[in-house]
Amino acid sequence: MAKKSFKLENINDIKEFFDSYDTFIFDCDGVIWRANNLIKGVKEALTLMKKNNKRTIFVTNNSTKSREEYFKKFSSLNLPVDINDIFSSAYSTAYYLGKVINFPKDKRVYVIGTKGLIKEIEDAGVNAFGYEDNITEPFVNEEEIFKSIKPDDSVGAVVVGFDMKINYKKYAKAYTYINHNPECLFLVTNSDITYPVQNSVLPEAGSVVAPLIAIANKEPIFLGKPTANMINCISQKFNLDLKRTCMVGDRLDTDMVFGKNNNITTLLVLTGVTSEETLMNQNEIIPDYYIEGLNSFNQII
Amino acid sequence: MAKKSFKLENINDIKEFFDSYDTFIFDCDGVIWRANNLIKGVKEALTLMKKNNKRTIFVTNNSTKSREEYFKKFSSLNLPVDINDIFSSAYSTAYYLGKVINFPKDKRVYVIGTKGLIKEIEDAGVNAFGYEDNITEPFVNEEEIFKSIKPDDSVGAVVVGFDMKINYKKYAKAYTYINHNPECLFLVTNSDITYPVQNSVLPEAGSVVAPLIAIANKEPIFLGKPTANMINCISQKFNLDLKRTCMVGDRLDTDMVFGKNNNITTLLVLTGVTSEETLMNQNEIIPDYYIEGLNSFNQII
Repeated sequence: MAKKSFKLENINDIKEFFDSYDTFIFDCDGVIWRANNLIKGVKEALTLMKKNNKRTIFVTNNSTKSREEYFKKFSSLNLPVDINDIFSSAYSTAYYLGKVINFPKDKRVYVIGTKGLIKEIEDAGVNAFGYEDNITEPFVNEEEIFKSIKPDDSVGAVVVGFDMKINYKKYAKAYTYINHNPECLFLVTNSDITYPVQNSVLPEAGSVVAPLIAIANKEPIFLGKPTANMINCISQKFNLDLKRTCMVGDRLDTDMVFGKNNNITTLLVLTGVTSEETLMNQNEIIPDYYIEGLNSFNQII
Repeated sequence: MAKKSFKLENINDIKEFFDSYDTFIFDCDGVIWRANNLIKGVKEALTLMKKNNKRTIFVTNNSTKSREEYFKKFSSLNLPVDINDIFSSAYSTAYYLGKVINFPKDKRVYVIGTKGLIKEIEDAGVNAFGYEDNITEPFVNEEEIFKSIKPDDSVGAVVVGFDMKINYKKYAKAYTYINHNPECLFLVTNSDITYPVQNSVLPEAGSVVAPLIAIANKEPIFLGKPTANMINCISQKFNLDLKRTCMVGDRLDTDMVFGKNNNITTLLVLTGVTSEETLMNQNEIIPDYYIEGLNSFNQII
């Protein structure tokens, strides 16, 4: 018989679970909030965790905002969160460059992405450029591309994140750096191909980068969930004991896979996109535990 | 023993070959010209073919120019070519919409591509739009995208060709039309992922369209070489006897595959990228015949 998720509902089970972990890594949407609305009991549950010296870490694959911008959202909801608890795919990318691989000080990173992403990379002590390619008029012409885009050995990495100002010149530059310099890394903040908007979805970083993946002569390195790189960055930064770390999320195919791929205990909450019925009617992804929501922890206060 | 290409060098073999075909389909670069330089003997060979009532058709996967623009290049080289002999992937796309599938008169096509591509589609009696999305300032913002991009049942097809003015709004619109309207076709002028420039290559239509392929809920239909759609359009337009039609090109992996995939006799010329040595040292793609160049036909005058 296949393994089943264990439901945390009994107060003793919840308490035992709570005592078994030092660190909780949270996905935000569907766990902490839904769009801009705080989910019931979350503030109290996070306060309980802080009081019990649990480390709480908030992860998001959104690469467009710096942690500072993201922190404002937590502050506006009066949540007991420190800016250092936030781990976005932008920050993960910056941390990977600055701390994990010690990106050389004399090299530069060409960034396709937002100001927020560039800021995170620069804050990690890494030279970044690319924002100036949000060119407008005169748009771009073939001759300009031929003349201006040249291989450049000083470019040690290309980073691609979500970018609504994507254009041909950026693709052409990124491609030239990646393919003409064998040392040049090819990093992508996150592999998500769409993100939700009202009644639809729009292209995310994973599809914005698709032209480069098609023509690059090397494999891209993805940094966000569900990659091992994301968990390695988090683990290195906070010096975590991964045996006492739990990934908490509402999505089977991202959050739970993220935990499972990286051998971390997984806890599914039912306050987001996955219902108990959906969980039960599939057997591809089996979280270790599931719970109604973070509010359930408050019964152990 | 594997089949080998037959080399046309003996005058009798060349004459017999010449008499066996009514139509020659030519790739241009490496066969007719190299960049802007006419290859030796080509003008005379084409004149010989015309005199002998051979049909000569010139195919290119370049989707950026209308046939008129392309025709100017032939004229500037004093070649005996009629505008109707030119078959670009832009024209092939237009012909497919207008003649092969009889695209409805009350529907519209959203085009990501150049003016030349839009002109070809309009000339085929098909309503096209999209050029107005080469927006400059104010660039684009999320709110504008949410508000302005809506599913639209009047859009019966999205066409993507090479486009140096590609931007996020175009991807978002194309995606919305393709995914929200089950009837909406998804056409791509050609599948080439790069095109050559000085000392390098740059992204072509096949990579420009990659974000849409990543997120579309249907398979794209490609129109250029080496697809059957291209040969079907050519065949329908000229009412060809494909048994008496020969594909002439310099590239094994595109031109020769194009002929082979579509059961047309293939003739490789050695005036382009493939040398006799390269041809002999591989056994993946075996053209039916090969010849030094079009100039070799002139010995039968």
